[in-house]
Amino acid sequence: MRARRSPMKMRLHVVVPIVTEGFRDPHAFRDLLDGAVEVTQSQITRGPASIECQLDEVLAAPEVVAETLAAEQSGAQGVVIDCMGDPGLEGAREVVSIPVLGPCQTSMHVAAMLGHRFSVVTVLENLVHEFRDSAVKYGLNQQLASTRSVDIPVLDLDDDRDRLLKVLTEQSIRAIEDDGAHVLIFGCTGMLGLADDLGESLAAAGYDNVPVIDPIPTTLRVAAGLVASGLSQSKRTFPPPPPKLRIGYDAS
Amino acid sequence: MRARRSPMKMRLHVVVPIVTEGFRDPHAFRDLLDGAVEVTQSQITRGPASIECQLDEVLAAPEVVAETLAAEQSGAQGVVIDCMGDPGLEGAREVVSIPVLGPCQTSMHVAAMLGHRFSVVTVLENLVHEFRDSAVKYGLNQQLASTRSVDIPVLDLDDDRDRLLKVLTEQSIRAIEDDGAHVLIFGCTGMLGLADDLGESLAAAGYDNVPVIDPIPTTLRVAAGLVASGLSQSKRTFPPPPPKLRIGYDAS
Amino acid sequence: MRARRSPMKMRLHVVVPIVTEGFRDPHAFRDLLDGAVEVTQSQITRGPASIECQLDEVLAAPEVVAETLAAEQSGAQGVVIDCMGDPGLEGAREVVSIPVLGPCQTSMHVAAMLGHRFSVVTVLENLVHEFRDSAVKYGLNQQLASTRSVDIPVLDLDDDRDRLLKVLTEQSIRAIEDDGAHVLIFGCTGMLGLADDLGESLAAAGYDNVPVIDPIPTTLRVAAGLVASGLSQSKRTFPPPPPKLRIGYDAS
Amino acid sequence: MRARRSPMKMRLHVVVPIVTEGFRDPHAFRDLLDGAVEVTQSQITRGPASIECQLDEVLAAPEVVAETLAAEQSGAQGVVIDCMGDPGLEGAREVVSIPVLGPCQTSMHVAAMLGHRFSVVTVLENLVHEFRDSAVKYGLNQQLASTRSVDIPVLDLDDDRDRLLKVLTEQSIRAIEDDGAHVLIFGCTGMLGLADDLGESLAAAGYDNVPVIDPIPTTLRVAAGLVASGLSQSKRTFPPPPPKLRIGYDAS
Amino acid sequence: MRARRSPMKMRLHVVVPIVTEGFRDPHAFRDLLDGAVEVTQSQITRGPASIECQLDEVLAAPEVVAETLAAEQSGAQGVVIDCMGDPGLEGAREVVSIPVLGPCQTSMHVAAMLGHRFSVVTVLENLVHEFRDSAVKYGLNQQLASTRSVDIPVLDLDDDRDRLLKVLTEQSIRAIEDDGAHVLIFGCTGMLGLADDLGESLAAAGYDNVPVIDPIPTTLRVAAGLVASGLSQSKRTFPPPPPKLRIGYDAS
Amino acid sequence: MRARRSPMKMRLHVVVPIVTEGFRDPHAFRDLLDGAVEVTQSQITRGPASIECQLDEVLAAPEVVAETLAAEQSGAQGVVIDCMGDPGLEGAREVVSIPVLGPCQTSMHVAAMLGHRFSVVTVLENLVHEFRDSAVKYGLNQQLASTRSVDIPVLDLDDDRDRLLKVLTEQSIRAIEDDGAHVLIFGCTGMLGLADDLGESLAAAGYDNVPVIDPIPTTLRVAAGLVASGLSQSKRTFPPPPPKLRIGYDAS
Repeated sequence: MRARRSPMKMRLHVVVPIVTEGFRDPHAFRDLLDGAVEVTQSQITRGPASIECQLDEVLAAPEVVAETLAAEQSGAQGVVIDCMGDPGLEGAREVVSIPVLGPCQTSMHVAAMLGHRFSVVTVLENLVHEFRDSAVKYGLNQQLASTRSVDIPVLDLDDDRDRLLKVLTEQSIRAIEDDGAHVLIFGCTGMLGLADDLGESLAAAGYDNVPVIDPIPTTLRVAAGLVASGLSQSKRTFPPPPPKLRIGYDAS
Repeated sequence: MRARRSPMKMRLHVVVPIVTEGFRDPHAFRDLLDGAVEVTQSQITRGPASIECQLDEVLAAPEVVAETLAAEQSGAQGVVIDCMGDPGLEGAREVVSIPVLGPCQTSMHVAAMLGHRFSVVTVLENLVHEFRDSAVKYGLNQQLASTRSVDIPVLDLDDDRDRLLKVLTEQSIRAIEDDGAHVLIFGCTGMLGLADDLGESLAAAGYDNVPVIDPIPTTLRVAAGLVASGLSQSKRTFPPPPPKLRIGYDAS
Repeated sequence: MRARRSPMKMRLHVVVPIVTEGFRDPHAFRDLLDGAVEVTQSQITRGPASIECQLDEVLAAPEVVAETLAAEQSGAQGVVIDCMGDPGLEGAREVVSIPVLGPCQTSMHVAAMLGHRFSVVTVLENLVHEFRDSAVKYGLNQQLASTRSVDIPVLDLDDDRDRLLKVLTEQSIRAIEDDGAHVLIFGCTGMLGLADDLGESLAAAGYDNVPVIDPIPTTLRVAAGLVASGLSQSKRTFPPPPPKLRIGYDAS
Repeated sequence: MRARRSPMKMRLHVVVPIVTEGFRDPHAFRDLLDGAVEVTQSQITRGPASIECQLDEVLAAPEVVAETLAAEQSGAQGVVIDCMGDPGLEGAREVVSIPVLGPCQTSMHVAAMLGHRFSVVTVLENLVHEFRDSAVKYGLNQQLASTRSVDIPVLDLDDDRDRLLKVLTEQSIRAIEDDGAHVLIFGCTGMLGLADDLGESLAAAGYDNVPVIDPIPTTLRVAAGLVASGLSQSKRTFPPPPPKLRIGYDAS
Repeated sequence: MRARRSPMKMRLHVVVPIVTEGFRDPHAFRDLLDGAVEVTQSQITRGPASIECQLDEVLAAPEVVAETLAAEQSGAQGVVIDCMGDPGLEGAREVVSIPVLGPCQTSMHVAAMLGHRFSVVTVLENLVHEFRDSAVKYGLNQQLASTRSVDIPVLDLDDDRDRLLKVLTEQSIRAIEDDGAHVLIFGCTGMLGLADDLGESLAAAGYDNVPVIDPIPTTLRVAAGLVASGLSQSKRTFPPPPPKLRIGYDAS
Repeated sequence: MRARRSPMKMRLHVVVPIVTEGFRDPHAFRDLLDGAVEVTQSQITRGPASIECQLDEVLAAPEVVAETLAAEQSGAQGVVIDCMGDPGLEGAREVVSIPVLGPCQTSMHVAAMLGHRFSVVTVLENLVHEFRDSAVKYGLNQQLASTRSVDIPVLDLDDDRDRLLKVLTEQSIRAIEDDGAHVLIFGCTGMLGLADDLGESLAAAGYDNVPVIDPIPTTLRVAAGLVASGLSQSKRTFPPPPPKLRIGYDAS
């Protein structure tokens, strides 16, 4: 269960669960952890262009499992899924022994450690109730203050970062004032890198007292901590799948 | 939202989410509803031989969605998924307007209506905590007394029906006596048709006071009731997926 | 426990738990289930004119039990109580072996199956917290978005159906927009037959994506499904009352 | 809302909700509160011989309401119902302005104040799940460790007090050791007066660290405290019933 | 466990957990219980001037424990802590055998007995989430409608009682109308004595149907009831601390 | 809110909240994080010899706050409290802006991420219910399978590490088999360093599938991740205490 700590540099791997090329810079995560940890990434080639509904999650999940297995086989010591829907998380945790983390589950637990209640600010209104379902699934629905959306599709997030930041700020302030949020979480990993900007924007509006969680860097750091601690998902919860015919899935 | 009631005979469709041929009789469900409702069925051709872990559910889900869509296009008025893992349920509900029911969600709600607490008796021990997760997801974990297993893989259920019935009876009695179960649910749709036998076996042991829910016939009857009432899943919870590139998925 | 399915036509019975004559058409339910199931009805002759508070429920309950017992003795195979307060439900379930359903419990479970959260739209403001109590009792309070009222007493519901529909529509939209309702339930069985009208009215306002549950027809169909499945309330939860002196109650 | 405190001696009234004569000494409660408070009592004359199931509660409830109303009219300042089923509690609270307390609700709240979790020791096994339902209704199910029974009908409790005490002690110790109870509540008001004896019996067995709540005296003292504080049930939760025809109920 | 009831007059003791002299009249509580019970009081001399944050509670707690121990040693039969933060409650309960009550825990349980949901009206906005934490801790968060503040520091409460009453009334009405409060609790014991005034003020505004709990007198009366019943905190939950070196704490 | 990441080596500080000298090696934590992070430590000089009850926590808490403040003033970037009771956590979080973590809260959240349910194995039986209270406080009680104890006082843990490991293994296996634990947490930071040994011991008994969380190293790594992410506790939940007289507390 508890692997000896490797003398070599740790390597974590990010699985990008959408087929759109170019949305993620090929080295988007490489330098996130300040050189202490190498972060590699790969992308699925079958599945949705972006993840904005349950169908998209269903279609992405088998490929996330396959990429996770490949990452372990190539020597990665931990895997993070690059989507707040955590698609394929449970299946992926079954097929490998290295830790696999979803940014939604991880960010919600970190948020719950940092303050009274947290809100999620996501892309589209139809995802609002899905985050409540996720909070129920992860046992944290009492700590979820609300979910709000900026009403911008995932693939349009980069089109106008100024407008995105403006709406993020507005919705964050409403989460704080109207919903009682004490901590904020980005509800889409496509908002990567905006936490400092949002923090400054909120501070300028008088809200310098609310932490903003950028899910991917936070989840990568928790993953690094787990690897260093020799911890991974429980194989009692996620036992290896029994061997059987699985058409379309190659586990060799 | 509320379709006029059809003057023609209602047709429900069952999606069998495993690739093993011959496990399900091709007319397993045809006569379940006493002629009042026609029940058709189809099977996936890509995915797992049986569903016994989260990986299996992940692999079956995209095919369940596709079969559900095809069923609606061929005129079915409701769909039931033939697995207590309810694989692909949420995705399938997004892509059609006819009601789609999972036997786990439906049976748990029916059980909660019939008595104080229910227990699930399933095939394998590693599924025990998954049923608790399902109860949490469906909001019924306070009503779940326990989950117990007969320790027989899905595809072996038919090998020795006498032994299966014996172990089912034993575990049911333990659920009643040790866990406080007042209602029982089969935790695998492969136990189809055994409710009367188990009821008699329990009655012989002095437990004639505990309803036994056979998930597929019960779920089909609830589905028929919804269709007759003009009810389906909320499109506010399950809105149609936004159009986008989805490689490997053909929604035309 | 599991009765053989009757070759004869199924008969369900509705107990109307108010003493007001003429409020219910004597054949209000006869044709609800399209001829597949016969629906009979009877009314209590001691108790309240309508049910709008806990006192009314207390007074109606003993008569509901007596009518339920009489219905079983006359050959009915299932009983539905015609009031969203489910008065006398638990007592009635003890004294018979046929299934007894309350429309509140049944509709809430059906609503929970159909979408993320449901709201109840009822007659009077003072019943709002009682529906929350009911949701707690039935284990579904996490799925209850809100309860709203049209502020019209039960016996006045038929006075002005246009105004009723108008207020129902307004309160339904507020439940959807302000409270996050994804499914709606009529909070009084006196609103019988208005679901299609409300559905059309909501669709005209742009809300064609929210199912509306008309409690009595939905509950009758679930009852029919239970009877066909040989299911009834658990006698472990609702055992036959021990024989004893009960002044004013004749169980012979 | 807040009555001036009476200069005269306070009077509380106990409603005995069973028709069996002689079970309660006519002055059972008179001296419970050490002379500081007068305690009167009355008994229903229509209803069950004892309360051991939901039917019994349904039949007793209308009479409890009537006796409560009569008690207020005769000048009592508070009412306590003499049964752990709290039959008729909500209805009674609607028809009067003086506080009406049920010993189950009150004892559970007092128990929750005194320690980590409480167990109820009641008369019959079939009541076990009803106490869990009561704990859910009163919002205290997380604090309920278990319910256990002595398996003696209510009207037989006085037949052999030695045996009763022996079984009470046994079940109390199992509640402490097996279920984690830190506080005990008598689950039937027919066990009145046994708390000191059970406390001594438990102390002799090494369990001198678990409070035993005798529901009626404890509830009377809480009622006296409420009266002295000018507090009663909220009329927002329990508004006066609207005037209407109620056949068989005379509220004049 | 169950002390014989004293023939002498009962004495309860209030610990004032702030160092500010003169805030509490030296006989503030003496006559609260109408002469039936003697109420003494003492004040800590090390700790905060008032309690308005968690730091203040942490600093007051050791002194509350010491004062509780001293009260028991001087013959008091029960102790009440004069602060809605219940500082030191659990520690104090460990070191004595007499009952120790916190006004927050006690008032919340009494409020839960009196109506559907309660709101707390406290001094400062930063305490709002702390009362939600307290409700979670005491197992009553489902019954907490909201917490609102008058935005006046503790030590300024006496400066302008008219303004305090005005703001209390405004916030109480908002709790009733906007949050669904059916019962109100003062969220600071510094509001002692204002319940009648607030009740009249609310009645004048049409809200004569909502009980207002003044925590200290209510808690003292519950404490008196516990003492008369021979009840105290469970020593299974609050066992005597094991002897050991504790620098700065003198338990002799 | 979001501090720029320091170019210098990160320093975390551990506060040892007991006065016993020699229990903690003066460099117990120095090398835990493999040189990437410097870990310093300090000990309180007023308070209990060990922490085994609520009184001990109350006495330690003010000193933990003071040591936390001193740590921030001396340049530490994060603080971890060396006790599973998390004494003084909330107060300490108010007085500094650097993140302060308790090992109980952090370990429970990490455990909840790793598997279905977790158990705590602690030192003494009387702490069992306190861990359930902690799980309630942290919102994770649904994920807590059980708490078990080795029945060895804190200061005796080092006396016989073989016996400790033997009992730890026995109780861990009972937690897994009887209580359904999928993840284990040490319930006392005095068990530091035993996770690998327990993991091996469990693997030898066939339980190689259950992660064991050693609270201090895991919490330190999470703290390091928070510091690197520029995250700290929400100042909306933990605002700076208002200035006022606090006798015995020097915040300068």
